[in-house]
Amino acid sequence: MELTANHIWVMVSAALVLLMTPGLAFFYGGMARAKAAVNMMMMSFVSVALVGVVWVLWGYSMSSGEGIAQLFGNPLASAGMTDLLGTETLISAGYGATFAIIAVALISGAIADRTRFSSWSLFVPLWVTAVYCPMAYMVWGGGLLTEEGFIGQTFGAAIDFAGGTVVHISAGVAALVLALILGKRHGFSNSPFHRAHSVPFVMLGAAVLWFGWFGFNGGAASSAEEAGLIWINTLAAPAAAMIGWLVTERIRDGRPTSVGAASGVVAGLVAITPACASVSPVGALGLGLVAGVAAALAVGLKYRLGFDDSLDVVGVHLAAGLVGTIALGFIALPDGGEGGGLFYGGGFAQLAAQLVAVVVAIIFTAVPTALIGLTIHRTVGFRVSHEHEITGVDLAEHAESAYDFAPDDDYAETSTRGDDKARLPV
Amino acid sequence: MELTANHIWVMVSAALVLLMTPGLAFFYGGMARAKAAVNMMMMSFVSVALVGVVWVLWGYSMSSGEGIAQLFGNPLASAGMTDLLGTETLISAGYGATFAIIAVALISGAIADRTRFSSWSLFVPLWVTAVYCPMAYMVWGGGLLTEEGFIGQTFGAAIDFAGGTVVHISAGVAALVLALILGKRHGFSNSPFHRAHSVPFVMLGAAVLWFGWFGFNGGAASSAEEAGLIWINTLAAPAAAMIGWLVTERIRDGRPTSVGAASGVVAGLVAITPACASVSPVGALGLGLVAGVAAALAVGLKYRLGFDDSLDVVGVHLAAGLVGTIALGFIALPDGGEGGGLFYGGGFAQLAAQLVAVVVAIIFTAVPTALIGLTIHRTVGFRVSHEHEITGVDLAEHAESAYDFAPDDDYAETSTRGDDKARLPV
Amino acid sequence: MELTANHIWVMVSAALVLLMTPGLAFFYGGMARAKAAVNMMMMSFVSVALVGVVWVLWGYSMSSGEGIAQLFGNPLASAGMTDLLGTETLISAGYGATFAIIAVALISGAIADRTRFSSWSLFVPLWVTAVYCPMAYMVWGGGLLTEEGFIGQTFGAAIDFAGGTVVHISAGVAALVLALILGKRHGFSNSPFHRAHSVPFVMLGAAVLWFGWFGFNGGAASSAEEAGLIWINTLAAPAAAMIGWLVTERIRDGRPTSVGAASGVVAGLVAITPACASVSPVGALGLGLVAGVAAALAVGLKYRLGFDDSLDVVGVHLAAGLVGTIALGFIALPDGGEGGGLFYGGGFAQLAAQLVAVVVAIIFTAVPTALIGLTIHRTVGFRVSHEHEITGVDLAEHAESAYDFAPDDDYAETSTRGDDKARLPV
Repeated sequence: MELTANHIWVMVSAALVLLMTPGLAFFYGGMARAKAAVNMMMMSFVSVALVGVVWVLWGYSMSSGEGIAQLFGNPLASAGMTDLLGTETLISAGYGATFAIIAVALISGAIADRTRFSSWSLFVPLWVTAVYCPMAYMVWGGGLLTEEGFIGQTFGAAIDFAGGTVVHISAGVAALVLALILGKRHGFSNSPFHRAHSVPFVMLGAAVLWFGWFGFNGGAASSAEEAGLIWINTLAAPAAAMIGWLVTERIRDGRPTSVGAASGVVAGLVAITPACASVSPVGALGLGLVAGVAAALAVGLKYRLGFDDSLDVVGVHLAAGLVGTIALGFIALPDGGEGGGLFYGGGFAQLAAQLVAVVVAIIFTAVPTALIGLTIHRTVGFRVSHEHEITGVDLAEHAESAYDFAPDDDYAETSTRGDDKARLPV
Repeated sequence: MELTANHIWVMVSAALVLLMTPGLAFFYGGMARAKAAVNMMMMSFVSVALVGVVWVLWGYSMSSGEGIAQLFGNPLASAGMTDLLGTETLISAGYGATFAIIAVALISGAIADRTRFSSWSLFVPLWVTAVYCPMAYMVWGGGLLTEEGFIGQTFGAAIDFAGGTVVHISAGVAALVLALILGKRHGFSNSPFHRAHSVPFVMLGAAVLWFGWFGFNGGAASSAEEAGLIWINTLAAPAAAMIGWLVTERIRDGRPTSVGAASGVVAGLVAITPACASVSPVGALGLGLVAGVAAALAVGLKYRLGFDDSLDVVGVHLAAGLVGTIALGFIALPDGGEGGGLFYGGGFAQLAAQLVAVVVAIIFTAVPTALIGLTIHRTVGFRVSHEHEITGVDLAEHAESAYDFAPDDDYAETSTRGDDKARLPV
Repeated sequence: MELTANHIWVMVSAALVLLMTPGLAFFYGGMARAKAAVNMMMMSFVSVALVGVVWVLWGYSMSSGEGIAQLFGNPLASAGMTDLLGTETLISAGYGATFAIIAVALISGAIADRTRFSSWSLFVPLWVTAVYCPMAYMVWGGGLLTEEGFIGQTFGAAIDFAGGTVVHISAGVAALVLALILGKRHGFSNSPFHRAHSVPFVMLGAAVLWFGWFGFNGGAASSAEEAGLIWINTLAAPAAAMIGWLVTERIRDGRPTSVGAASGVVAGLVAITPACASVSPVGALGLGLVAGVAAALAVGLKYRLGFDDSLDVVGVHLAAGLVGTIALGFIALPDGGEGGGLFYGGGFAQLAAQLVAVVVAIIFTAVPTALIGLTIHRTVGFRVSHEHEITGVDLAEHAESAYDFAPDDDYAETSTRGDDKARLPV
């Protein structure tokens, strides 16, 4: 059939969402130390490759189609996407891939500076298969939490337009689990012990994430009115969240920072993700403001509770994901005059459905993530040696360093560290 | 209603234009000194947040709808965009936000290295409210300069398809006013005294600006023929302008530079902005060439006239904005056989209309900008202390530095400057 | 006429492809040495400008319309695109420009660190005129290799959906020719002698290239089914190729590198370019895997054969371009039940057509490129002096250096190299 406006919108959105993962690589890579930036970025990049392959082979099948016990789709149903040849379904199947990719990539921020690249490469396909695909199926694919599913029918269907539970709460919980399994970095105590090695990269990452998020939130819009609302809300919430974070910093620390601005944007985007099609622009401003303040405070938790979620996946994605998902119980607009959140006279029904979805997402993420993480950690090992952590995971795991500003010609001369191999990768 | 091709185009264009402001952050941030790069970028980033909020609350209303004395729209008409819920107007309202955001962000280049972040955060919403929204209303929203407006009826309606007056002349004039109010940086004399701290960031910024400009110029196209013409012209004019700037440098300085190439691109884009739907591709090449040469020469003015427009907002945006807006008096194609510029037999009518629009834009920008700027400068102060300017505005205003390439683990050890607080922002 | 979904798709795709050339600037610029990064990036940037102008004036005409001896279009047919005014053809004419731009920019990777900028600026318009436009005409514009052309009728029409021959084999062959003409860099021997000066820029470049490639491959899709297939394949092939390259490195060198990941992505994208609309998603995975491994091995050839293709244009674009173009002889899906590759029962016909197209592309590129390259080299000289190569081509050719991280105020103090002129370019 001919290309329609909707096809174009989904394909453009899919390209935008795919770009978000390299954006994340810069957001995280900029915050990492210079000696661990390559490894940090590689965890995102390899996620694109591994999930891309998994998605074509069995991931798409597991997140759609006929389900097994309302938990996940039959992995063989569209294996290799061969049965989709000659159909326009390939377009939405491509869009779906990009969500799976960024969901797992988000987790990597919790385990900066100390992760074995081969173990991460093992974790990625396992997590997407055991956690992401089932979650996507349960919330969007016709499974447990949808209107047709057991929980959806019992407690009402939660609203999660673009992935508050499936992507952000899920990634945030998995991040916490992995941070606990891998343990703290050398030097981690009760206060920050290094700063972003490249602030411009953090801002580049946040900008690319914001840009791509218009596809993330908007790609599934079913009408012009809905699409317009989503667009405005995807501008308004992170705008307010940036202000919320900066004001919090100004009051608490005396100075508003750029890394705070970038993090505020991400917190606002996370919070509006489930809610983008169900709240008014003013609701989006309020939601963003709350999410920005909440996340700015939540990133301090790790020092009090003593887990080394290195780049604050819990503080940003879990906290703001919870804010956005639960807020819908209060500020969801009535849909065609019916329902809506507590503030719109819809009663407690929506709030209950949202809370149930949150609990389900936490459980269905935490348990399998812990199993996968512990298995990898106890067998091949998830963490580099203490020595390699000190000298830097980039050199140890990739035989690279992020920068070489030396003006010298000679490769050997610019290489100052012992175990580097004189080799040009490309 | 269903999504149409036009809805998609406007939403994609809006996302592209929103990305331009982070692009600008890199264009300006790369040209700034390393010790002021964070502050430079933050002035763009916070503009997105502040204008995003203002636009939802009252900015959109002021740039459209029923006007007050043909000067600006009633700010309460669509306050909070609540009345737009369930309408597709939300799409164009979102598109409008992105123009307001970049207009004010452009100004920041004039006041690099010496601006208090809190004062800038005050300036942004005031300027958008008092200058941008009225200008947008007067030129595009049905006000003074349109066919229905007093000036438009008296002198003819000027052509400004995408913001030659509203965005670029306006921002350029405001930049000049603020540069005069804040005064020169320490060390500024009659020749350049520092160079771009990161040339690749300048080029990244220019590339992102060019990419986004296809949405900036194209988003309002009303037909396929017009859209195609705009696309070609948005390629042709900056291409020719880059060549114009590089050739000027080659002749004047002996060497063509990359910062010149990037600046030439921006000059060409500025010049084609008002003209993109009204000149032929060959006209766009000629216009770009003239704008590239003119801007390359204009950036030297500040040394002769003694105002410290640090990153040449006047030399690029005001100069090229004037070239593009006035050139329409000569090279505008006849519209449906009627009118057109002097070269197309349309007589002096179009030229007169363009000149009047330029004068109006200058006056309606300069006066309120001066009032806002002086008020801030005389009360809370617009400029950091001399000491903070010397040690660097990044540390003073944000407790950050753009880079930390040190291989050491210990945060305290990498912090070498006294007034830095040991604190991780995220 | 009204904007249709197809118009939007082509305009968005064109903007995406245009962004690829700055992406390439970062991919190459990051791999170059710090003292040659500006020049490396400038070779891409000036290509946009020069080809943009050439395309409007005569390039578009030469790649389409009525041909001269089936070799190229009449350069005067649409000179200046004046006859396209008021037609929607301007949209596809703009899309075509972006392919010509990146094709020539790709070549620059072979001649890093040693090229005179003015000579490159001469080479670009000559090559596009004498090589790219004829190739585009022969393969896509109705010329020699199409179904209506002499070779197409004699040997069957080769499949090259998005530029395996026209862009990648062509650029790869030209790169080899220029590398031989310019000769080796000082210090080049049988092993790598420097490493990427900025790994994050290499990854940024690869990410932007991948993002833009959805427009490169997808822009000409004629149906939703085809567009969906292209989208999935443009995800799947580079995903598999990244894995192929990383596994090859792991086995050969012990460590998978980020520059390898980025290069694998590009190799996969190159290989799927001609094949994107003609292979299944599983076929794309297989093709990507083979291309990733093949290119990872091919980049070592230059050390064995002794040509200094500095950033591996031959190893990546020529090798993967050959893999993708020839693979179609084996894995092309039957089109409407007819034909197809060897593996689909289509016999040797497709393979023969592909091989003929490869040979034609090599000859029609190598001969004119050698003539242009040698003429420039023997007259004005293609290479900077030995002294300038040692001190760095950035300073010599552009009076710039990529970075200035010094905290000092004084321009003179930060300028440590003798022949630098104290001058701020903007």
